[in-house]
Amino acid sequence: MAFRHRADLPIGPDDIRAAAARLHGVAVVTPLLESEALNGLIGGRLLLKAEPLQRTGSFKFRGAFNAISALRPTAVVAYSSGNHAQGVALAARLKGISCAIVMPADAPRTKLEGTRALGAEVVTYDRAREDRAAIGAELAERLSATLIPPYDHPLIMAGQGTVGLELAEEAARRDVRLDAALVCCGGGGLIAGCATALAELTPGTAVYAVEPEASDDTARSLASGRRETNASDVKSFCDALLAPSPGELTFTVNRALLAGGLAVSDREVADAMRLAFRHLKLVVEPGGAVALAAALAGRIETKDRTIAVVLSGGNVDAGLFAEILAADRS
Amino acid sequence: MAFRHRADLPIGPDDIRAAAARLHGVAVVTPLLESEALNGLIGGRLLLKAEPLQRTGSFKFRGAFNAISALRPTAVVAYSSGNHAQGVALAARLKGISCAIVMPADAPRTKLEGTRALGAEVVTYDRAREDRAAIGAELAERLSATLIPPYDHPLIMAGQGTVGLELAEEAARRDVRLDAALVCCGGGGLIAGCATALAELTPGTAVYAVEPEASDDTARSLASGRRETNASDVKSFCDALLAPSPGELTFTVNRALLAGGLAVSDREVADAMRLAFRHLKLVVEPGGAVALAAALAGRIETKDRTIAVVLSGGNVDAGLFAEILAADRS
Repeated sequence: MAFRHRADLPIGPDDIRAAAARLHGVAVVTPLLESEALNGLIGGRLLLKAEPLQRTGSFKFRGAFNAISALRPTAVVAYSSGNHAQGVALAARLKGISCAIVMPADAPRTKLEGTRALGAEVVTYDRAREDRAAIGAELAERLSATLIPPYDHPLIMAGQGTVGLELAEEAARRDVRLDAALVCCGGGGLIAGCATALAELTPGTAVYAVEPEASDDTARSLASGRRETNASDVKSFCDALLAPSPGELTFTVNRALLAGGLAVSDREVADAMRLAFRHLKLVVEPGGAVALAAALAGRIETKDRTIAVVLSGGNVDAGLFAEILAADRS
Repeated sequence: MAFRHRADLPIGPDDIRAAAARLHGVAVVTPLLESEALNGLIGGRLLLKAEPLQRTGSFKFRGAFNAISALRPTAVVAYSSGNHAQGVALAARLKGISCAIVMPADAPRTKLEGTRALGAEVVTYDRAREDRAAIGAELAERLSATLIPPYDHPLIMAGQGTVGLELAEEAARRDVRLDAALVCCGGGGLIAGCATALAELTPGTAVYAVEPEASDDTARSLASGRRETNASDVKSFCDALLAPSPGELTFTVNRALLAGGLAVSDREVADAMRLAFRHLKLVVEPGGAVALAAALAGRIETKDRTIAVVLSGGNVDAGLFAEILAADRS
């Protein structure tokens, strides 16, 4: 329990418990899935946290609702590739406040439409040439709105950390010891929160960040000890994981608590999406499937081990999903 | 509570409670999903029981495991279009007994492969020209195996009825009154069990059988009062729901307890599958989506009402699912 007292970290287990209390009865306690077939493929045991079944189709609602509940703003602005956008939009609607979101013009259609359907004003920008953070800050000032950042904020990390809290609680309920946990990583908010919860509740669990090969800034940053940046022309269909570099606060947590960083190819991600379709009956978006891809591709030892995997979201366009299914090579 | 004493029916609530006890810790207590977007589409509230997340990808594991647990056979045989096949195969494997399954040669590939992967011997037959019941009975005699029928048996109905039991219990936990429940119907085992549970636990809930238009034997049987038969050349992609006529025992229950029968077109089913993909992130097979299709197509009044819908399975080939997604007309 020494961990509770790490004053050098921006969040602790109590922040996650406070977030869980705010989310109680509002967020879905998503199921922890298991499949005989996937277990057979890895020669071990996979427990999969199904965040595509969360409200708005990804874990992002947790952090957004936690932040908005705690900060009590009168209007909010956010910039997001789409999942944070929908999370903030729903949280704002539930709180009865207005909401504007800055989104890339090439975001998946389902994310753009989903955000608008939740009542948010959507402002699009060019991902290659414009700075979303600057646009978001400007918009916030103009509208006298509070900016809800996508990951680099204690309340966001704590909200996302309820994924790890539920994971550890359900594993305990099933009397299962988790050897490792694989969590996707864009800006690092989800994994920072999960690692904080797991460090307290299952301190023997090795937590790994999983990223697309082309956007492996956290893996490189963990190796070098300082925040590294991705090339600006990153090509990956994992649209949810293309943050340019680790957050300042998230990296402070992740550097202290993670066992390492793993990277997977888009092809491995597509394989994982097909296997989730077939054996879990779950729609997982590319960015949501990287952790499963890492387990299936053998990036860590899986034989006779029990591995928790966070499937972080399921907001993928029907056309892309159909293409991926049709490209099945098995 | 008068219902408890209906001695004219082949199963009662106590049979379902006994099944729930046998399934405890073995079957998944599947989540009851809800979506803001789907609620908006019907102007009411939908609560969706997600049986694609059940072991083997459909509710069929419940009845199979219940029957095999209670009968304690040394070997089993079954005939099935694929979901009962996988349910029986897994239940047999968990009990350590051998298993042979008679399946249509044109069953979905995922169901044929899934059944074989669970260790069952698969014998295929021609759906148009051969009688699966006769083949199953012959095989059972040759192997000295017990035949596990797909629906027309009290233990099968009771096992499937645990879907209704969980549904009613979760609705009570959320303090929700169910105005209606829509349940798919092939041979009628699932809905007979669900109606039995709901009649006791939420007696005000109107339970409707939903079938493909081309295979609406139960709807016609409920209207005429006797067991009607479908044409032998039925064309529908709802492969799981093509039983030729209601079962004798299932129809005895269904005639007594159901509010009526509804029918939907394959096109309406495809629309429902796309909406489940988009808003629930769930893979639902055609036969598993008929009840959702009936709600979305307005077959019953949904405005300001709360409707439970059973999504019964998710075993659909990737190729067909991709075609259905690609055909999106929205």
